[in-house]
Amino acid sequence: MARTGRRRGDGGTRAAILEAARASFARAGYDATSVRGIARDAGVDPALVLHYFGSKAQVFAAALQFPVDPLSIAGRLAAADPERRGEALVRLFLGVWAEPGNRRAIEALLRSAVSNEQAAAMLREFLGRVMAVEVAGRLVDGNPLRPLLIGAQLAGLAMLRYVVRVEPLASCPDEVLVAALAPTIQRYMTGDLPAPEGARP
Amino acid sequence: MARTGRRRGDGGTRAAILEAARASFARAGYDATSVRGIARDAGVDPALVLHYFGSKAQVFAAALQFPVDPLSIAGRLAAADPERRGEALVRLFLGVWAEPGNRRAIEALLRSAVSNEQAAAMLREFLGRVMAVEVAGRLVDGNPLRPLLIGAQLAGLAMLRYVVRVEPLASCPDEVLVAALAPTIQRYMTGDLPAPEGARP
Repeated sequence: MARTGRRRGDGGTRAAILEAARASFARAGYDATSVRGIARDAGVDPALVLHYFGSKAQVFAAALQFPVDPLSIAGRLAAADPERRGEALVRLFLGVWAEPGNRRAIEALLRSAVSNEQAAAMLREFLGRVMAVEVAGRLVDGNPLRPLLIGAQLAGLAMLRYVVRVEPLASCPDEVLVAALAPTIQRYMTGDLPAPEGARP
Repeated sequence: MARTGRRRGDGGTRAAILEAARASFARAGYDATSVRGIARDAGVDPALVLHYFGSKAQVFAAALQFPVDPLSIAGRLAAADPERRGEALVRLFLGVWAEPGNRRAIEALLRSAVSNEQAAAMLREFLGRVMAVEVAGRLVDGNPLRPLLIGAQLAGLAMLRYVVRVEPLASCPDEVLVAALAPTIQRYMTGDLPAPEGARP
């Protein structure tokens, strides 16, 4: 694992890591990709990958150009009162979409996922492995339906409010949506829910 | 409004009505389209349009090739106990998506809405005017957020379960989803919700 002799500016190193990461996540998926393998393909030390990005999940987010850091979301939710995490998540979600730059980045991701099967597979893997398992999985019990029900409610909201822009949802103040949605998300996080018996894992 | 002298078989008449309807809904929107205008453009008596389709909302559903009759959904929900309409709607929704023919039709609608702005506008109008107002508006109080929150939850579910096919949501038995989602939908139908003050109508 010695450093190679290549010398590059910070920008070049970061870009080489992201390029190697994108290729590996697309080819091998999240589980079979390692920080060590990305570092080897990029010709850098694994410590440098962690120095730039923090973790495998964060390299994946950066490789996808996902506009928010999944572990910072997880940290902010973990810091909230467990009985108010539903509300905290709705606020975080609306805050991310309210930023025009974030919104454009997410819409670009969705557009490429709709038109390109490899991009779709990477986004599916990111949502299923990183957002549902690494982020949400740490905050709820082991019922794997919980993060997916939360994802379904928030994805559908984003579609109608920000993409299709149906009124009065599109111009509805955030606080009204927080009051409407927080109890739903809180129940999916901590309420009584059946386990998905009979489903494939 | 006299009948024209044209003679056509049933199939030809039905097709001519749908063609005139599609052109008018696309050009003028739902509110400015009338059964009378569609009949005139198709060269038939307005009574024949109603005979074939039942109502303007139903002509619109047929013109879009929407696979279920919105008024039959409204009728089945209206027949259910008001406190169990959430459950009834989740069952109806899962039943529509479980039919491969319906699923293909909805996916074709979504694909053309993604790639074609006029198709997107018609689908938006159909969901906003027909499904939210004509169907859901008859079953809930006047808060216009109610049908949109229901639509957001169900659209997000369909996206993750049937389009992206994330496990364990994709293979989860219907009954588990009914138990998980019915309380959400019931609350959006009849529970305490803030009104969308400050939103555009």
